[in-house]
Amino acid sequence: MSSLLEQITEIARAARQASRALAGVNSEVKNQTLKAMAEALNASGKVILAENAKDLEAGKKKGLSAAMLDRLTLNPDRIQAMAQGLSEVAALPDPVGEVTSMWPRPNGLLIGRVRIPLGVIGIIYEARPNVTVDAAGLCLKSGNAVILRGGSEAISSNLCLGKILAEVAGKQGLPRAAIQVISFTDREAVDHLLDQEEFIDLIIPRGGEELIRRVVLRSKIPVIKHYKGVCHVYVHADADLDKAYRISMNAKVQRPGVCNAMETLLVDQAIAPRFLPEMARRFQEAKVELRGCENSRELCPAMKPATEADWYAEYLDLILAVRVVDGLESAIAHIQKYGSDHTEAIVTENYSAARKFVQEVNSSSVMVNASTRFSDGFQYGLGAEIGISTTRLHAYGPMGLTELCTTKFVVYGDGQVREK
Amino acid sequence: MSSLLEQITEIARAARQASRALAGVNSEVKNQTLKAMAEALNASGKVILAENAKDLEAGKKKGLSAAMLDRLTLNPDRIQAMAQGLSEVAALPDPVGEVTSMWPRPNGLLIGRVRIPLGVIGIIYEARPNVTVDAAGLCLKSGNAVILRGGSEAISSNLCLGKILAEVAGKQGLPRAAIQVISFTDREAVDHLLDQEEFIDLIIPRGGEELIRRVVLRSKIPVIKHYKGVCHVYVHADADLDKAYRISMNAKVQRPGVCNAMETLLVDQAIAPRFLPEMARRFQEAKVELRGCENSRELCPAMKPATEADWYAEYLDLILAVRVVDGLESAIAHIQKYGSDHTEAIVTENYSAARKFVQEVNSSSVMVNASTRFSDGFQYGLGAEIGISTTRLHAYGPMGLTELCTTKFVVYGDGQVREK
Repeated sequence: MSSLLEQITEIARAARQASRALAGVNSEVKNQTLKAMAEALNASGKVILAENAKDLEAGKKKGLSAAMLDRLTLNPDRIQAMAQGLSEVAALPDPVGEVTSMWPRPNGLLIGRVRIPLGVIGIIYEARPNVTVDAAGLCLKSGNAVILRGGSEAISSNLCLGKILAEVAGKQGLPRAAIQVISFTDREAVDHLLDQEEFIDLIIPRGGEELIRRVVLRSKIPVIKHYKGVCHVYVHADADLDKAYRISMNAKVQRPGVCNAMETLLVDQAIAPRFLPEMARRFQEAKVELRGCENSRELCPAMKPATEADWYAEYLDLILAVRVVDGLESAIAHIQKYGSDHTEAIVTENYSAARKFVQEVNSSSVMVNASTRFSDGFQYGLGAEIGISTTRLHAYGPMGLTELCTTKFVVYGDGQVREK
Repeated sequence: MSSLLEQITEIARAARQASRALAGVNSEVKNQTLKAMAEALNASGKVILAENAKDLEAGKKKGLSAAMLDRLTLNPDRIQAMAQGLSEVAALPDPVGEVTSMWPRPNGLLIGRVRIPLGVIGIIYEARPNVTVDAAGLCLKSGNAVILRGGSEAISSNLCLGKILAEVAGKQGLPRAAIQVISFTDREAVDHLLDQEEFIDLIIPRGGEELIRRVVLRSKIPVIKHYKGVCHVYVHADADLDKAYRISMNAKVQRPGVCNAMETLLVDQAIAPRFLPEMARRFQEAKVELRGCENSRELCPAMKPATEADWYAEYLDLILAVRVVDGLESAIAHIQKYGSDHTEAIVTENYSAARKFVQEVNSSSVMVNASTRFSDGFQYGLGAEIGISTTRLHAYGPMGLTELCTTKFVVYGDGQVREK
């Protein structure tokens, strides 16, 4: 029996080999495969639910929280939704082979850039089995081989889903190693995976901040990540009050547990007396706990006092930090100091303020008069989302299919040689 | 006195702060600064040459090779060339602020992607002082702060050049910390620099393979690199013989010491008897040592025998590995096995062969009927080159100004909030 390291290396090597074949597969074959995968999932409900039941039973024994168990649970509707997701990916345009630009040179050479897959992508994630299917679909469509390493809590579900997908790939003439789920639940298996820089091109961790930090610290392979989303809404002096109420409310309460929810509300001092008391009343009605700076609390004495730590906090809950700022410059300075480069919005009717905010705030998404909740690959019309990056290399913001690709240069000549 | 780590951290922190200011500087100011830098270099010839003389003297004492001393040497012509380079960068279009695409969504949101600088770039290089000026110019133009760490052999030259450039930046109202040259020559200083992932966004090592491997191994910051260029020319069965002779000769001998020179010539067996003996004769005339496979040596018995190691070799010299292959598939397989993802060319008049080669070879540059020596940012019309990447993340192939940038999303709304 070979060692764990050897087995993981073999998985990575097989993925590299599969990626070579996948890169040249045409859209029609990929789309047929995705649709066949969707059918196979729908046809395999019983098996999937049986394997999922094992995970749920083990999870209950381990004492997982109700929220964890919910994320882990599959049911016919959720299986149907995963299958539906694959069909939607099949319907998206294929990014591979697109000529993104092409230009002639004075010597007659024609130079172009053509999109190609990254190669092999490793996904490291936690308890949600749907990530197995979503990620496999997006990687396949973009011509990448994928290695999936989900949480130990979902191991039976993930292995079952991975097996169904790989079998379909094989039947459609694609390499089965295009989609591999790692069966080893030891943390060491992840460490070995993160050492395979020869065979894996990119690691995308999906999960909590702790998981992501662990992966970044350990990986020899480039990692695309976002640690947290400390998103801001800044209500400018010239805001339309109605828009400000609606956007602030939506950004905080429509789904507070996600990374594009607002965590800090910045209010211009010029509008604070008109805006903040009514806004606070609405938030309190919506059961949002408010933690305010001194100026906020003068206007709304019911707020708890905010501490320095609140400006850095990603609550992911019905809690909101509130700060009165003395103008646009201060709002931008606050965002630069405390923000996480995720998403920031200004609410204003003032053209110059909007322009300045959009130019000077270099978070991955910058918005005018819109809820931060729109920061999402589907909402942006990318058709899909494999994650959000808040670091600037390779991808910044929501990542769709094109972010799973790179471009190569192609050069069409007629015998040109270089003189000097 | 603070520790070396503290001092390096301070440099990195100052660069991050400078990068915030730089990101918003408009093109006019950046271009004026670049032109003023060019003038300052031309006006400071005496000082620069005096500092360079110190490096040369120390280098001679240390026993540096003649080639090393040559690379280290500045003279009025070379200073003029560096200044000229800055003026050329001033004339290039500014990548920052470009809206690369913008599209409406059904709910009325307008979504766009806007180019912004990466932030802070660290350049780690060897003995050529011109890199100090070239890299500083490209980083400034693309709105990035730069930290330069050249080899100890060039320390006096680099510090002098960096001081001149930073002073001009300061006079033009830009932060002086936009351009910083590290004065510490200990290798520890590099290690500390590679730990500053909070403040530095990208490391670009420029130099030999050993330097690059050391940087990659040590860095916590993303590194864009290419280890080596094992470039191939494949002479297809339907090649035009004259083009094949000219391209093969140019790719090998026009400048053998650079990464885009050909290292292995692949010859289709169908054309080998007509092509190879004459090509070998021309190469021998040009003093190129040939190392051939068995089939090559049957046609050209004067060739030395090639070993397995020759197929991996980057000679950077007048040496060439030659292999006869039994067709397009074998040529592609050889390139995939032994290549370095740098640049490969096919010589053919056959449309389908050209199409297949361009589609299936996923090196960073793939050429038809052109010399591999064109694989270069200037030759491609990028206007500049900060390096070549042979890994696929963020940039692949020659990197110009746009590769020193990323894009953020901007969202223009009218009060939109998210329903679900």
